Amino acid sequence: MEQGTSKLVSEQSLKKFCNAVLCKAGVPADEASVVVDNLVQADLRGVDSHGVVRFPIYIKRLLDGGTNATPRPKVLRDSPTAVVYDGDNGLGHLVGVRAMQLAIDKSHEHGGCAFVAVRNSNHFGAAAYYAEMAARQNMIGFAFTIGAINHMTPWGGAEAMLGNNPFAVAFPTPTGDPIVLDMACSIAARGKIIVAAKEGKPIPADWATGPDGLPTTDAVEALKGFVVPVGGPKGYALTLTVGLLSTMLSGAFFGSEVGDLYEKTGEAQNSGHLFGVLPVAAFDEVPNYMARIQKGMDDIRNAKRAPGVDRIYLPGEREQLSLLSRRENGLPLGEGLWRELQELAQRYDVPLTHID
Amino acid sequence: MEQGTSKLVSEQSLKKFCNAVLCKAGVPADEASVVVDNLVQADLRGVDSHGVVRFPIYIKRLLDGGTNATPRPKVLRDSPTAVVYDGDNGLGHLVGVRAMQLAIDKSHEHGGCAFVAVRNSNHFGAAAYYAEMAARQNMIGFAFTIGAINHMTPWGGAEAMLGNNPFAVAFPTPTGDPIVLDMACSIAARGKIIVAAKEGKPIPADWATGPDGLPTTDAVEALKGFVVPVGGPKGYALTLTVGLLSTMLSGAFFGSEVGDLYEKTGEAQNSGHLFGVLPVAAFDEVPNYMARIQKGMDDIRNAKRAPGVDRIYLPGEREQLSLLSRRENGLPLGEGLWRELQELAQRYDVPLTHID
Repeated sequence: MEQGTSKLVSEQSLKKFCNAVLCKAGVPADEASVVVDNLVQADLRGVDSHGVVRFPIYIKRLLDGGTNATPRPKVLRDSPTAVVYDGDNGLGHLVGVRAMQLAIDKSHEHGGCAFVAVRNSNHFGAAAYYAEMAARQNMIGFAFTIGAINHMTPWGGAEAMLGNNPFAVAFPTPTGDPIVLDMACSIAARGKIIVAAKEGKPIPADWATGPDGLPTTDAVEALKGFVVPVGGPKGYALTLTVGLLSTMLSGAFFGSEVGDLYEKTGEAQNSGHLFGVLPVAAFDEVPNYMARIQKGMDDIRNAKRAPGVDRIYLPGEREQLSLLSRRENGLPLGEGLWRELQELAQRYDVPLTHID
Repeated sequence: MEQGTSKLVSEQSLKKFCNAVLCKAGVPADEASVVVDNLVQADLRGVDSHGVVRFPIYIKRLLDGGTNATPRPKVLRDSPTAVVYDGDNGLGHLVGVRAMQLAIDKSHEHGGCAFVAVRNSNHFGAAAYYAEMAARQNMIGFAFTIGAINHMTPWGGAEAMLGNNPFAVAFPTPTGDPIVLDMACSIAARGKIIVAAKEGKPIPADWATGPDGLPTTDAVEALKGFVVPVGGPKGYALTLTVGLLSTMLSGAFFGSEVGDLYEKTGEAQNSGHLFGVLPVAAFDEVPNYMARIQKGMDDIRNAKRAPGVDRIYLPGEREQLSLLSRRENGLPLGEGLWRELQELAQRYDVPLTHID
């Protein structure tokens, strides 16, 4: 079992559990399964920060009325290449999948590039899931989202006005497993600062600032402050860009309007996303593209390695290996998360069992 | 005058000089002026690394046959949303402007999103120029390019297989001056390492690796090695993504195929770019978008500031202020660059005079 984990759970058990809880929280069964496939995929891929660790807050928001369990999303504007989609405050995973599917369908129908701008959505989990949907249809896929909490300042600022906004880009490959970039814009995840604060340890000077906007190595001060963007002003410009892409075309919340996923759980977040697809076939014969990207993958993988490095990975490759391993061996859940899920299990009378 | 500079040159003199030299190197006058406007715009915006500092190598490549002075670019594939454009090995600035204009024209014609993938191009200068072209037409503009030299390794590698690939995204704003992100993927520009090496000074441990792929603070070793991507594996994935976007749809060179702008100046580089536009009007009424982005800009600018910070800038705003100032006061050119330009002035019998 991976270190620091308490329980191993099979993919099937975890999905069954999450499905049952979502249904008891009022989500229709077919929609619950769309959400759960997306959610658990993040855990399978080893991106634990965006998987079931967020499940309890999603449920809380459904119960408190901050998220709509039975949304009726609708298309507000429609054309062959540009769509605006209103998620009716549904779970972000559901709204996101429907919106990216719309982009893919538009592209299949018209043979061209298509973008879908989303409003009235919620935290949608890991961006890679959506970009990969497109890549598996031989399209380059883009997914941008506004973060569900503001944790970053403008460069030089001392006020959280920006999310650590993530985005993903996925490329079709001959094996079917996409090359996929999925990144947010901070140097270090806020979770690492939380751990350091709990252990009373200092943090590197470039991870965070205190509430005054000045660098700090004190993890407790850092938690009152802000995470620092990757590359300083570069990361600031990047997270601002991802935030604007995700909100300005659709009218989702940005800047001072953005709420907090974990607070005011009875209020809608009006989160925004932007999904896009560039179908390979619109630019070239697919086999030509596949030959090119295979050569590119070979170049990267076969590059001379630094001492002590066994293997060079393409973006998304470690996650794919995690998926195969965890599908086979089960998903490790930390102690705190296990307890939270057991509380949900009791409340909803839905069992969650571990493997060993 | 700015520190470390030798001469101040007016915008008009510099443009006239560059135009004349390009014409003497065989470039038709109307095409030369497209290139020069683009090139000098980078200097005006304060992005000196991508302006006339590259002019001597562009001229050398034209003379040595590595770049085609009289290209006949052509559309290889055409559709309302996806175009493949062959630059016929013309100057990247010319090919890039023509290609982005194609994307803008497609969008005006069909009212939708449009992307143009480019092959057989060359170093195109600063990516912001192209993205801003779209933004000034009320479109969100994207510009991606493959770098003209490989300076980066795959993460864990010890072989230059990736460029420090830049990209730009620009947003229309109510003032007409776009918000524009323009970034490459390294922590520090290679130019800073060159300066440290000349001065015999060490560099921070996270800027570069030696030729073995391991971190070094020795600037001389670093110059034999590789620049480090911003955020480590994040920057690796990002530069790979920008590289794939710029080349895979068009069949431009990638990875081991990529040459060196400064070497083999008689061989074509087959550089690739990707340009894209999302017209605001396809998603919402333009005034609605403008009201939203104005509010977003106000949020960022008016955020509480860290101690000692006078003003918070939006991406592209410092560059716009530089442009206004340098248009008024002239462009500062370093001593080395001034000498190089004077050599061109003598060779082509074209005067370049400074202001004072």
